[in-house]
Amino acid sequence: MPNEGSYEAALKRSDQIQADLPQHPENYTMLTGDRPTGRLHLGHYFGTIKERVRLQDLGVNTNIIIADYQVITDRDTTEHIRDNVYNMVIDYLACGIDPEKTMIFTHSAVPEENQLMLPFLSLVTEAEMERNPTVKAEQAASGHALTGLLLTYPVHQACDILFCKGNIVPVGRDQLPHIEITSKIARRFNERYGKVFPEVAGLLTSTPLLPGLDGRKMSKSYGNAISLSMTAEETAKLIKKSKTDSERNITFDPEGRPGVSALLTTAGICSGRDPKEIADEIGMGGAGQLKRYTTEVVNEYFAPIRERREKLAGDLDYVKDVLHDGNRRANEIAHETLNEVREAMGMVY
Amino acid sequence: MPNEGSYEAALKRSDQIQADLPQHPENYTMLTGDRPTGRLHLGHYFGTIKERVRLQDLGVNTNIIIADYQVITDRDTTEHIRDNVYNMVIDYLACGIDPEKTMIFTHSAVPEENQLMLPFLSLVTEAEMERNPTVKAEQAASGHALTGLLLTYPVHQACDILFCKGNIVPVGRDQLPHIEITSKIARRFNERYGKVFPEVAGLLTSTPLLPGLDGRKMSKSYGNAISLSMTAEETAKLIKKSKTDSERNITFDPEGRPGVSALLTTAGICSGRDPKEIADEIGMGGAGQLKRYTTEVVNEYFAPIRERREKLAGDLDYVKDVLHDGNRRANEIAHETLNEVREAMGMVY
Repeated sequence: MPNEGSYEAALKRSDQIQADLPQHPENYTMLTGDRPTGRLHLGHYFGTIKERVRLQDLGVNTNIIIADYQVITDRDTTEHIRDNVYNMVIDYLACGIDPEKTMIFTHSAVPEENQLMLPFLSLVTEAEMERNPTVKAEQAASGHALTGLLLTYPVHQACDILFCKGNIVPVGRDQLPHIEITSKIARRFNERYGKVFPEVAGLLTSTPLLPGLDGRKMSKSYGNAISLSMTAEETAKLIKKSKTDSERNITFDPEGRPGVSALLTTAGICSGRDPKEIADEIGMGGAGQLKRYTTEVVNEYFAPIRERREKLAGDLDYVKDVLHDGNRRANEIAHETLNEVREAMGMVY
Repeated sequence: MPNEGSYEAALKRSDQIQADLPQHPENYTMLTGDRPTGRLHLGHYFGTIKERVRLQDLGVNTNIIIADYQVITDRDTTEHIRDNVYNMVIDYLACGIDPEKTMIFTHSAVPEENQLMLPFLSLVTEAEMERNPTVKAEQAASGHALTGLLLTYPVHQACDILFCKGNIVPVGRDQLPHIEITSKIARRFNERYGKVFPEVAGLLTSTPLLPGLDGRKMSKSYGNAISLSMTAEETAKLIKKSKTDSERNITFDPEGRPGVSALLTTAGICSGRDPKEIADEIGMGGAGQLKRYTTEVVNEYFAPIRERREKLAGDLDYVKDVLHDGNRRANEIAHETLNEVREAMGMVY
């Protein structure tokens, strides 16, 4: 975690950029992405996908990496990866990512991006990589020895961001250290070899984290996440069996009543209403009524997305075309950037 | 350094391969290389270049990487790198490396080789990389904090060797740990995803290390190295000012008389004679006569190499063609190997 001072500075910079974005979208290139380890859920949608669509539609140069090599930072299998990648593209498109405006590509498809690992690794120390909180947290969670891939994770991310000269990256506060190390790499490269890379800033999201249906962190492994790919019936079933409490009167109290409050938050975000207002309305209607209402607004909100999703899932050729086109464009950009890097380093023979 | 037991095993394997090489050269692919930090000298020539030519002429599939990114493992500039790379190619060709038989290429020119870094980094731990003696030694010598590039050095080497499915690598005993980590990566990849990579063995050199003219390790920075690119006159001058001792009678005694003995060893290796025999012959002729004799046999041995070198230096277009052709072939091979890796990992979309 960055200290308060650097957080304040990052927040200020983020606010400046947010204010400037609608005026000068052409000055910004965004890079963000996901690990293809499963289907996207409501947490992803409200936490990041919606913001990507907003930036895309503002006219920002938007880029999404499907970080397939990151799947093996903390596990030793790539099982189901193809299926996960296709479904990720389907999720994006269904949510409104427009492949004409946003480049969607896979990490493993862009060798000239990955080659940046070598010069970039020379610009950071082992200690700097070890200090990265994501490296620490994932290592602790993995339960095995720290692999080279997880240790160098901040450097891959720098490659992802810098190969397309990304200068804004949507992040939560806990991801600011990634932005810091990427900026450090860009600055050190420019100082040592001449200016090639831009200044990078984190775009801090103001969206509060959407909890899972039980009030804990939303995660597929907890069974508390509504996936975009679920049907209306599956959604109803999952909400129905979610744990509430024995008090009939519905009130919004995230600390004391995590289950009830998570339902209220979910219903609130999908209906655009204040969770407290919904609680007041339901009152002695109890958990049953709250669940019915939540199911209704979730399914209503996601109906068009799910409809598009189903259509896309039936047209895998189109989905592949989108990915292949994104990969082709990513390779063109990586080729240009690597050429600039070679030129700056004098490695043109 | 490997322990005695694993050294014995490596030596036995190396001897078996040496015996099999003339019978079945087609079963072997060799990868070796150099950092382009200066000109090749007599130590390189007798220590490794001559052996490469021998393997090439036996019909082994021989490959030489000019490891340009390794230049920045322990320094923060790539100054003169282009000049060093061209001169390295010139040195190779002058020494008898035949570009029709041996692929000569630069590390930075082969992105699909470099992408192997990502899957390979997932197969080793930070601790395994840290334990590598070259990483330790170079870190100590560099005097700065350990960079990510130096730490991951054993993994780049694995990429260099495995992308072309190298199965033999000429090494000194101290480099056996590199072979061990490369073998580990190949084995772990094959176990996890299916067989793509070969077993790798070190080809232990039997050539004793040629000392510098003062008896210390031969190194440009000590001023005790005769470069292949020196003229006969420069060679004479360097030998003339080399430090011997005040005893007139010439005897071969590397411990007690390092300067005199280094000259005898140098004269011996170039004339194909026993240094002791040369010492007996010169006897009371003293250091002056020893230096004249050494100069004569060094210059005689290297005259044809230097003649070819001069011709090549005057035809940079040809030198570039050789490199470009090697890079083209390396890219073809890397493309094929990366495709196999993607296929094995299920990353084909």
